[in-house]
Amino acid sequence: MTRKINFNAGPAALPLPALERAREELLDFVGSGMSVMEHSHRGKEYEAVHDESIALVRELLGVPSNYEVLFLQGGATTLFAQVPMNFLDKGTAARYLVTGAWGEKALGEAKAVAGMFGAEVSVQSLGVGEGKEKKYTRVPALSDVKVDAGNAYLHITSNETIHGVQFNADGTRPFPHTGSVPLVADMSSDILWRPFDITKFGLVYAGAQKNIGPSGVVLVVASKDLIEKGRKDIPKIFQFRTHADNKSLYNTPPTFGIYMVRNVLSWIKGQGGLPKLEEANRKKASRLYGVIDANSRFYRSPVEKESRSAMNVVFRLPSPELEDQFIAEAKKRGMVGLKGHRSVGGIRASIYNAAPYEWVDALAGFMEEFQRGK
Amino acid sequence: MTRKINFNAGPAALPLPALERAREELLDFVGSGMSVMEHSHRGKEYEAVHDESIALVRELLGVPSNYEVLFLQGGATTLFAQVPMNFLDKGTAARYLVTGAWGEKALGEAKAVAGMFGAEVSVQSLGVGEGKEKKYTRVPALSDVKVDAGNAYLHITSNETIHGVQFNADGTRPFPHTGSVPLVADMSSDILWRPFDITKFGLVYAGAQKNIGPSGVVLVVASKDLIEKGRKDIPKIFQFRTHADNKSLYNTPPTFGIYMVRNVLSWIKGQGGLPKLEEANRKKASRLYGVIDANSRFYRSPVEKESRSAMNVVFRLPSPELEDQFIAEAKKRGMVGLKGHRSVGGIRASIYNAAPYEWVDALAGFMEEFQRGK
Repeated sequence: MTRKINFNAGPAALPLPALERAREELLDFVGSGMSVMEHSHRGKEYEAVHDESIALVRELLGVPSNYEVLFLQGGATTLFAQVPMNFLDKGTAARYLVTGAWGEKALGEAKAVAGMFGAEVSVQSLGVGEGKEKKYTRVPALSDVKVDAGNAYLHITSNETIHGVQFNADGTRPFPHTGSVPLVADMSSDILWRPFDITKFGLVYAGAQKNIGPSGVVLVVASKDLIEKGRKDIPKIFQFRTHADNKSLYNTPPTFGIYMVRNVLSWIKGQGGLPKLEEANRKKASRLYGVIDANSRFYRSPVEKESRSAMNVVFRLPSPELEDQFIAEAKKRGMVGLKGHRSVGGIRASIYNAAPYEWVDALAGFMEEFQRGK
Repeated sequence: MTRKINFNAGPAALPLPALERAREELLDFVGSGMSVMEHSHRGKEYEAVHDESIALVRELLGVPSNYEVLFLQGGATTLFAQVPMNFLDKGTAARYLVTGAWGEKALGEAKAVAGMFGAEVSVQSLGVGEGKEKKYTRVPALSDVKVDAGNAYLHITSNETIHGVQFNADGTRPFPHTGSVPLVADMSSDILWRPFDITKFGLVYAGAQKNIGPSGVVLVVASKDLIEKGRKDIPKIFQFRTHADNKSLYNTPPTFGIYMVRNVLSWIKGQGGLPKLEEANRKKASRLYGVIDANSRFYRSPVEKESRSAMNVVFRLPSPELEDQFIAEAKKRGMVGLKGHRSVGGIRASIYNAAPYEWVDALAGFMEEFQRGK
């Protein structure tokens, strides 16, 4: 088998050792004579994996004991609704900072929930233009973020997968400072590729299918205080406390998905943890943005430099025809997943944890070559 | 490897060929150079599997074109809330027929939703006793089911996994006739082991982890008419129409889970479809109930004969000590998953589609032998 060079935005490439480990024991998990998929979620064999996944998140992210680590289902899209269901009530208001398409979706669901509960949602949007022409090219500088002290929470999308804009925690575009207002972040394409201070957040959530596993699992890390403030009059399955009180075993979890997350997190640890991964990921992003900037008459990044994503490198060529040709020729060299999201077009290379430098270097080399030929 | 004889209630045993197929192509799906987990849910390779899963459900269950087949997330427990969220509104009332612990849970979530929306829930419970002593031992005869013509829907749990009571579609305990009131059923441990007339139902849902796949996928089959009647003012992710309009690709589905469901359904088809499976499953259940009835001084089924489940065979021994000993000795013979649910105790053998007759026969033989030794 020749392994594809996979730049998919999610579901995305997984570390080969995590997949090989799964294949090796797919029919006989830890010598039990059963697949991990066939084990009860309440049996000791599965529970060991479940506990290890939670412990690895705690260790890798440095999650303190006053925070919970949960594995939920339904994708980040379900969290778009679940977060406001927990924290909005009659007369309260949440605030949404919208820096791309995923933030818009989160906002839409929050408005539906606000309508159900007689609450309000206020918005700061960084989009320019209207409708299909709307463009998102940046996240705000710290001083541009507006929050009211009375807000139930401020919601951000820390990396916008489609538009390729990202808060850069340690640079000129840090995560917002919200004082006593809980900061809530959709980190689906932004979790576990670099260290960050989780204690500045009330709750973060992330679909696993980008940096940490297959689709069908959502990682939630949240402060116990915030979880306790959640409504108690909504269905139990949507209350974060239900899952916190039951170690994410209130109902049957997606056991194989959490097992794969364990395999990936274990690989991350073996790589040297988040500091080492950040180094590797920044090197990958620099390689691609380097080619774009060095060839700016041909390649164009639509994103403000300070807001460029290290996970999703979005760029344009001089024409849609050249972009199609670029994608087709890349495919011949074994590179897939380079087509930009259908809502924005262009090229997008998603270079999450599992994409090795060699893949990125191959793409960069191809970009240089393709441009020379035009 | 010696494969365990697995009587787990769910996640449960999977057909060995479905697992072997997954192992075979885990790193290289249809020669694509990537795992199925690494494919985009919008790419043609995954989409072919997704479409095949839907088509197989349609074919095996005989689903007509005015019904939708959906794959959702969050387990049946999420559906406990999602169903009333779609179909309850101020001034309406849903009716719940409770024949076991899962029906109680569904009822609890429906009450929470009714509280949010100013709706009502009425209940017919077949439980006897109170609290921890409450016992469920039967489903109602047709004439005993009470529904009001004005009910938004009647909800049943067609097989109660914990208590081992089941509607027997063609016998003396058929599914309720509800006239113009939509019949909604949690069929988690009851789907796709026998043919039934889906057109008598408005909506059925089933967690995959018993008869059709790994945990993390919920199958929903629902009439288009009912889906269209659902509320439009709840979050989009919870509206059934959202998933129907997007072929269950509104957000990233649990791709590997649906792939495994495809492998299992394909195996079911290869076995001769549901009529053949029903034959095999009834033979398995008869073997176990045969031993229980022939040795009724030692083994005791707490369930009314007409309501006995063909999926979860629940029985007691003369004492809890003998039950513990039974489980321990069975384990020595490679049989696992026989401990009754912690809420009711006793013994439970879950004998879903993937449990071959040989497993059941081995258990029956052991039951006879164990009893002789006492």
